[in-house]
Amino acid sequence: MKFRKATIKDIPTIIKMISDDALASKREYFTTTLPKTYYDAFERIDSDSNQELTVVIDDKDEVVGVFQMTFIPYLTYQGGIRAQMEGVRVHKGHRNQGIGKSIFQWAIQRTKERKAHLLQLTTDKKRPDAIRFYESLGFKPSHEGMKMHF
Amino acid sequence: MKFRKATIKDIPTIIKMISDDALASKREYFTTTLPKTYYDAFERIDSDSNQELTVVIDDKDEVVGVFQMTFIPYLTYQGGIRAQMEGVRVHKGHRNQGIGKSIFQWAIQRTKERKAHLLQLTTDKKRPDAIRFYESLGFKPSHEGMKMHF
Repeated sequence: MKFRKATIKDIPTIIKMISDDALASKREYFTTTLPKTYYDAFERIDSDSNQELTVVIDDKDEVVGVFQMTFIPYLTYQGGIRAQMEGVRVHKGHRNQGIGKSIFQWAIQRTKERKAHLLQLTTDKKRPDAIRFYESLGFKPSHEGMKMHF
Repeated sequence: MKFRKATIKDIPTIIKMISDDALASKREYFTTTLPKTYYDAFERIDSDSNQELTVVIDDKDEVVGVFQMTFIPYLTYQGGIRAQMEGVRVHKGHRNQGIGKSIFQWAIQRTKERKAHLLQLTTDKKRPDAIRFYESLGFKPSHEGMKMHF
């Protein structure tokens, strides 16, 4: 398993992966020709050094996972940097093979490399398996994740 | 009440405010001469157009509140931008005057101006009053906020 920065050519594969999920299918829009909004978003992510969109590659050079890390500078914690994970997805045909765990081992390493003092994420309370998985990795459910949609 | 971008001259006042809290006092370090880490962090925030550190000013031109908004580009939600709040503090001597509510009214407006589809934050489960306050504003506690400290 390898990790590399996502490129514009990965976008269709990534969008297919993030759409292929019971909760996400309501809000994504995958077609053969993708809406331009996804490419505009990729440009915003790719041009920002605090964003890292990373794909996981298997031994056949196929994309089997994706995640985005954001490194956020704050004044709190004596001017600390936080690492944040979002959009973690493993390809449907490659689940239960430890890819999720490998993603987080890599992300923890990356958090330390970027000198962040904290790795954080929010996970939908409707995903109890995900919550258990994150707890098994050492995350503490210490906070309420509050959201307001527009 | 007015809102303006924080400047380097506001840093001591801001750090005093964010230290003046039962949970935060364990992790901040306020002295007359502040550690350089806070100024380095201010530089990182101030030079990044996706970070907005904002102070609230009263009619005597005194800083009575502070908060940081981060605008994060994602591929999810058809390539949407999320607004995130962190480090919201109201000066001890100015609480229960509606400043917190004004901060969020301003932040919601700013979220819309920046064309973000979501405003999010995490709040410590040990702050039940804060959770109730956020719910009163329209936030839903739909997610678990998972943290891993290093």
